[in-house]
Amino acid sequence: MQGVIDYLSKNEARFVSELCDYVRFPSVSAQPQHRSDVQACAKWVVQQSQEIGLEARLCPTAGHPIVIAKTPRAKTKGQRRPHFLVYGHYDVQPAEPLDLWKSPPFEPQVRKGVLYGRGASDNKGQNLAHLKAVEAYLKTGTELPCDLTFVIEGEEEVGSTSLTSFLRTHRAELACDAVVISDTGMPSLKHPALTYGLRGITAFEVTLHGPSRDLHSGLFGGTVDNPAMALCQLLGQLRDKKGRVTVPGFYDEVQPLSAYERKQFARLPFKARDYQKLVGVPELFGERGFTPLEQRAARPTLEINGLTSGYQGEGSKTIVPSWARAKITVRLVPNQDPERVMARIRQHLEKVCPPTVRMEIDAGHGAEPYVVSPTGPQAQAALRALKLAFGHEPVLVREGGSIPIVNEFKKILKADALMVGLGLPDDNAHSPNEKFDLACFTNGQLMCAHLWQELSKA
Amino acid sequence: MQGVIDYLSKNEARFVSELCDYVRFPSVSAQPQHRSDVQACAKWVVQQSQEIGLEARLCPTAGHPIVIAKTPRAKTKGQRRPHFLVYGHYDVQPAEPLDLWKSPPFEPQVRKGVLYGRGASDNKGQNLAHLKAVEAYLKTGTELPCDLTFVIEGEEEVGSTSLTSFLRTHRAELACDAVVISDTGMPSLKHPALTYGLRGITAFEVTLHGPSRDLHSGLFGGTVDNPAMALCQLLGQLRDKKGRVTVPGFYDEVQPLSAYERKQFARLPFKARDYQKLVGVPELFGERGFTPLEQRAARPTLEINGLTSGYQGEGSKTIVPSWARAKITVRLVPNQDPERVMARIRQHLEKVCPPTVRMEIDAGHGAEPYVVSPTGPQAQAALRALKLAFGHEPVLVREGGSIPIVNEFKKILKADALMVGLGLPDDNAHSPNEKFDLACFTNGQLMCAHLWQELSKA
Repeated sequence: MQGVIDYLSKNEARFVSELCDYVRFPSVSAQPQHRSDVQACAKWVVQQSQEIGLEARLCPTAGHPIVIAKTPRAKTKGQRRPHFLVYGHYDVQPAEPLDLWKSPPFEPQVRKGVLYGRGASDNKGQNLAHLKAVEAYLKTGTELPCDLTFVIEGEEEVGSTSLTSFLRTHRAELACDAVVISDTGMPSLKHPALTYGLRGITAFEVTLHGPSRDLHSGLFGGTVDNPAMALCQLLGQLRDKKGRVTVPGFYDEVQPLSAYERKQFARLPFKARDYQKLVGVPELFGERGFTPLEQRAARPTLEINGLTSGYQGEGSKTIVPSWARAKITVRLVPNQDPERVMARIRQHLEKVCPPTVRMEIDAGHGAEPYVVSPTGPQAQAALRALKLAFGHEPVLVREGGSIPIVNEFKKILKADALMVGLGLPDDNAHSPNEKFDLACFTNGQLMCAHLWQELSKA
Repeated sequence: MQGVIDYLSKNEARFVSELCDYVRFPSVSAQPQHRSDVQACAKWVVQQSQEIGLEARLCPTAGHPIVIAKTPRAKTKGQRRPHFLVYGHYDVQPAEPLDLWKSPPFEPQVRKGVLYGRGASDNKGQNLAHLKAVEAYLKTGTELPCDLTFVIEGEEEVGSTSLTSFLRTHRAELACDAVVISDTGMPSLKHPALTYGLRGITAFEVTLHGPSRDLHSGLFGGTVDNPAMALCQLLGQLRDKKGRVTVPGFYDEVQPLSAYERKQFARLPFKARDYQKLVGVPELFGERGFTPLEQRAARPTLEINGLTSGYQGEGSKTIVPSWARAKITVRLVPNQDPERVMARIRQHLEKVCPPTVRMEIDAGHGAEPYVVSPTGPQAQAALRALKLAFGHEPVLVREGGSIPIVNEFKKILKADALMVGLGLPDDNAHSPNEKFDLACFTNGQLMCAHLWQELSKA
């Protein structure tokens, strides 16, 4: 491994310059005017991959192409070698508003050890770190203990529309032991992190229909139910004052946090006062018996995302509104199933909805929660690699959001995802002045180099 | 009185023709392009009043003018004669949408004993009936047992903006024993009605502020309260499932319905199935122990008029919204006081609002409930006049809405209002094809003629 490590060290400057080349492509997948830039960027990734010794090709899709790049497969070995996928994306978020950037988004600049530019952190810097680690193996003739396939898509920022069907049609080629993803983050350079869990989601809308039209509240009020009030009463009882969901059976499948996991949560840097200031609330809130970090990442929630009813303009309008609607999302944790949870909520709402209004429930999208055992051999291997590269004890993290593609890998390829993100909380992903610390880039390459050794032992 | 009655009968055709002249003025107070029409209509009312022997003048205001017309005062009598005001308005609602009218709104047509045209019922037909009754007295030399002052304004459909200050500045001239208003309705020609009560109102907005901006529900959900949910919980407890308001002290000042009043309500024509069809609800609703007619006219209610929070567009947006707002109106009954009720609601909300959100309450307009004793001598006099004119036992009615000017008469002139409306429920006031039954017009004149006799005896 020393050869690999030395190679990475010696070529640091060139790698930064290549990352700048990569960032220079305005590969904005959402904007039609950048279609050819997205294509050019994909071609650059193929060329890079080929230059470092990978077998790479551009796979067209209905949208933007997917780059597939493989390490040369050992031909004569009798024993089956492990096979890992490395997932990343070469497309970026739109750069607007441009006037808020200190240097132009597609003219990368290094200032004080930090590279500024759209896509530097999300996700070009992170997937290039993986490619550079493999380059170090291949260019130094160091044997990789596993086979690798890079899957670098161009539609992550627009919903990974083409990737799911691509996974299905390339199921055999992509069969693997795990998917490594560097597209999340770590709390700080002193807290390298493995993200081992994500919350799932189920979204729905509830509409209550009352009178056939808005009624004069003076002439009719008192004889007809008010759908806005009925909605408040219906939804108000779905959650207690501390955030615990009161739908019968809601927590039945929730896998309790292990003592080990709670210990990991407790190691994360967190200051309640700073957090309260960050979110700007009069007082923090949350389910009893859990810390804020547990509440937002490892406990299910039910959130009203929007309310609509009656008159919303200036002044007042004395009506009993004809209908009232709420948009709701429920965040799920392992092992809650979006459809089963939705069925329980629907059943409960149907039971408690008064006969004076007609209820309509529209189920929306769903995503399963995700978790990989933090004490399993692959997770432990990733933790060792993180520690070797960053020189600090890594933390185990769950994220409160969902990354739908992780579920697709699990469903289609039956492979777990190891999320070893290299971003920092202040990287401004999706915002002006996106940046990537060069320390994250170089330590990240080192982590990737160690990862294949540790994972192949696992 | 026979002379008066004969005169009204003999001149029926001319009176209808004069009502057509009156309706022909497009005196739409809300539309600036009709400003001169409104003015011309006011002048016509002055001229009509003068022709029938009243002392009439046009009183300019900041808005549209007010017509004041008085019966000749008896000069030498020693005893003080009663003095009554007759309130009405010569302005009308806009006629749009014009394409829904069977005959043009300002080209009155009589079809099968019904006069069609904007303002025919609301309020030209009704105030002209009063003028014609007085004409009958004056032209037949029949002595009126009282002094009358007509106050016919031109801004009723735009909030009676100028009338309040006019009442204040003409307090001495307008001091009276009662105000007679024919601007409400009766259930049918067989149910002539005295409206003896109106509900009051107090309006307010509640806003709950949570995080300083919309937050990602995945990243933050579970650690901050959701203002939309907190609003549902806050408002959901203000009313029970049958419509009874649960704010402490809310019913303290409510004057119970007397046995006499409940008997009057029971006499009103009402079919639950027809009513349910009219309002188009799955099931009727209302406070236990009261009939629907009592619930909507003589019981207080709390109605949410509108709800606003978070994302209301297509699809879903996974946020914890920064704020949530409700518009609320509370209908009041005698002897509830808008300010006292508002203070109790505010106190209650402040008590139950959780510390995890910041509450803002904006009080809006208020109007006091109104009631005149239905068994008092003036009300009984009005009932006698109604019976004499329509030949049917009159009903006593409370209306669920508010008529703010009634409170102004009470406050400024200390005078009660006797609401003897001549409209029918299907008159389409404020809608296309407004109409006025000529039977209402002729019986209405007769009622007005009897009213002065009966009231002066009271």
